[in-house]
Amino acid sequence: MNKLDISCYFKDLQNRIVFGLEDLDGSAKFVEDIWQREEGGGGITKVLQNGSVFEKGGVNFSEVEGLAPKELLSTLEVSLDQNTPVSFYATGVSIVMHPDNPMVPIIHMNVRYFELKNDVGIITNWFGGGIDLTPHYISNPEASFFHKQLKKTCDLHDPTYYPKFREWADNYFYIKHRKETRGIGGIFFDRLTALDNNSFSRLFDFVKSVGECFLPTYTSIVNLKKGEKYDSDQKLWQKIRRGRYVEFNLVYDRGTTFGLQTNGRTESILMSLPQDASWFYDFKTEIGSSEEATLKSLNKGVDWINK
Amino acid sequence: MNKLDISCYFKDLQNRIVFGLEDLDGSAKFVEDIWQREEGGGGITKVLQNGSVFEKGGVNFSEVEGLAPKELLSTLEVSLDQNTPVSFYATGVSIVMHPDNPMVPIIHMNVRYFELKNDVGIITNWFGGGIDLTPHYISNPEASFFHKQLKKTCDLHDPTYYPKFREWADNYFYIKHRKETRGIGGIFFDRLTALDNNSFSRLFDFVKSVGECFLPTYTSIVNLKKGEKYDSDQKLWQKIRRGRYVEFNLVYDRGTTFGLQTNGRTESILMSLPQDASWFYDFKTEIGSSEEATLKSLNKGVDWINK
Repeated sequence: MNKLDISCYFKDLQNRIVFGLEDLDGSAKFVEDIWQREEGGGGITKVLQNGSVFEKGGVNFSEVEGLAPKELLSTLEVSLDQNTPVSFYATGVSIVMHPDNPMVPIIHMNVRYFELKNDVGIITNWFGGGIDLTPHYISNPEASFFHKQLKKTCDLHDPTYYPKFREWADNYFYIKHRKETRGIGGIFFDRLTALDNNSFSRLFDFVKSVGECFLPTYTSIVNLKKGEKYDSDQKLWQKIRRGRYVEFNLVYDRGTTFGLQTNGRTESILMSLPQDASWFYDFKTEIGSSEEATLKSLNKGVDWINK
Repeated sequence: MNKLDISCYFKDLQNRIVFGLEDLDGSAKFVEDIWQREEGGGGITKVLQNGSVFEKGGVNFSEVEGLAPKELLSTLEVSLDQNTPVSFYATGVSIVMHPDNPMVPIIHMNVRYFELKNDVGIITNWFGGGIDLTPHYISNPEASFFHKQLKKTCDLHDPTYYPKFREWADNYFYIKHRKETRGIGGIFFDRLTALDNNSFSRLFDFVKSVGECFLPTYTSIVNLKKGEKYDSDQKLWQKIRRGRYVEFNLVYDRGTTFGLQTNGRTESILMSLPQDASWFYDFKTEIGSSEEATLKSLNKGVDWINK
C-alpha cells in the first residue's frame, strides 16, 4: 500500500459523494474545475450552486507535492536536519455543504494523508480528518443520530477513537472570540501515524470508514429535514450563523488560513464560504426562542448521543 | 502633553464624527455601548444600522491598559529585559462605514497612540493610523479627490509623508490571496516615534490633521454619490466586494486578528463587518463592464491623483 492507493481511494470517494449529493439535491449538478499547482500537483474542485436542497457546496480532491516550504515545517513543528532538502506530499478530500433550508444543517468532512520525505525515504507520514455538523437549529434526535453514526464508525476500529476524537473536534471547531462551538461537533483527528505497514493499513481502513460514513449519515439527516417549512426570520438566523461559519473558517481553520497564506488555489479553498452571510451589531436572540436554545447549546463537552 | 491629552482628543473626535455622520445620514442615530475591559480600561462603541445612507457602520473609541501580554510583545517585536514587568497603554478611534448605495464607497479610518512602560517610565511610545477608501465602483475623479485631500493633509506636516504612507497603505490593505488591493488605498502609518517633546507634539498635530480630514472628505464623496440610481446586479456586486472586505479584515487586518486572539470586545472589533456579504464560486465579471474595470484597477502603485 502506498500513496497512490490512498489518492485513488480519495478520488473515487469524491466521485461517489458527488453523485450521492446530486441525487440528494435532485436538480443541480456539480461543476468541475481541474487545476494544477505551479509548484507541483493539483486538484479537482467540484462545486454545486443554487440547487433545490443545497444553495452552495463543494467537494474538493487535491494531491499536491513539492519542496516543503519553511512555513509548512514550522507550522507542523517538525524539526529536521536543515541540510538535506525535504519534500512533502499531501492528498485529501474536503467537503462543505450549505443547504438552502435553514432547518437542514451545514456539514463538513475532510480526510487527508500527508508525508514528508528526503532522498533516503519517508521521514514521517500520517492521516488526518474529521466530520462536523453545524445545524442552524439544533435538534437533539438529529444530533444524537449524527454522533451515534460517528461512534459506530470509530468503534469498528478502536474503542478509544470516538471519545478522543469527539473531544478533539470540540476543541478544534471552537470560535474562541464568540465562546461558541461552531456547531454540535463531531470527530477530528490529526497525525495518526503507524510503526509498521500492518497498522498503517489499519489506519487507512479507519479513514476509509470515515469517508464512507459521510454520505449515508448526511443523506438521512437531509431527507428528514429538507421538506420542513421556514420563514424569513429563520432565513435571517441562518445568515447570522453562516457569518459565524465564515469567522471560524477565515480566523481559525488551519487548512484555510494555511492555504491562503501559501498560495493555494483561493477559489477551491474558499468554496467553504456560504453564498450569503450577515452580521448585525450585538444581535440578541429572543428569550425562549429556538434560536436562543441553539445558541445556549453551542458548548464543548455536550453528550449529544444521550441528550 | 501626555496620554490624557491624546485620549481626550480622540474621544472628542469620536463625538464630532458621530454627529457629522448622523447629519450626513439624515435619519439614523448611532447607538452607544460603553464597555469595560476586565484587565484594564474600556471603550465607547457607537454603531449605526439601517440608516438612509449607511446600512451599517461604527465609530469606536477605546483606551485600554494593563500588563503587556507576551503575544503583544512578540507581535510588536520589541525586545525587553524580561525581569521587569512591562505595561502597555493604547488609545484610538476606529471607523468603518458601509453605505447602502453601492455607488457610495466604504470608508475606514483609524488613529491610535500606543505606549509601553515599566517602573522607571515610558520605554517607547508611538502613533499610528490610516484612512482608506473602498469603492464598489471606482470613479477616477472621486479617487483623485480622495488622494488629493490626503496629500494636502500630509503635506502640511511633512512632504515625505504622503508618498511614504500611500505606499504603506497599498501594501497593508492588500488581499494577498486575491492579488487585489482592498480598494483605492489611502494612507497608512505606524510606529511614528519622536526623540523629544517638541517633535512628539508635531506628530500629534499630524495625527489630529488626519482625524480632522475624515469628515469633510467623506461627506463630499457621499453627498456626490448618495442619490445615484442602482439596480439589483449592482447591489449583488456590492455584496461580493463586501465579501472581500470580510476576507481582508478576518485574515489580514492586524487590529482585528490581534483583538480576537487577545480577548478583545468581539462586537466592537467586528462592527467593521458589513450587514450582508456574498461569495459565489469563481465569480467572473462581464467583459467590458464597470465591475471588470473596477477589478482591474485594484492594484498597488496606482497614481490615483492623476489618473
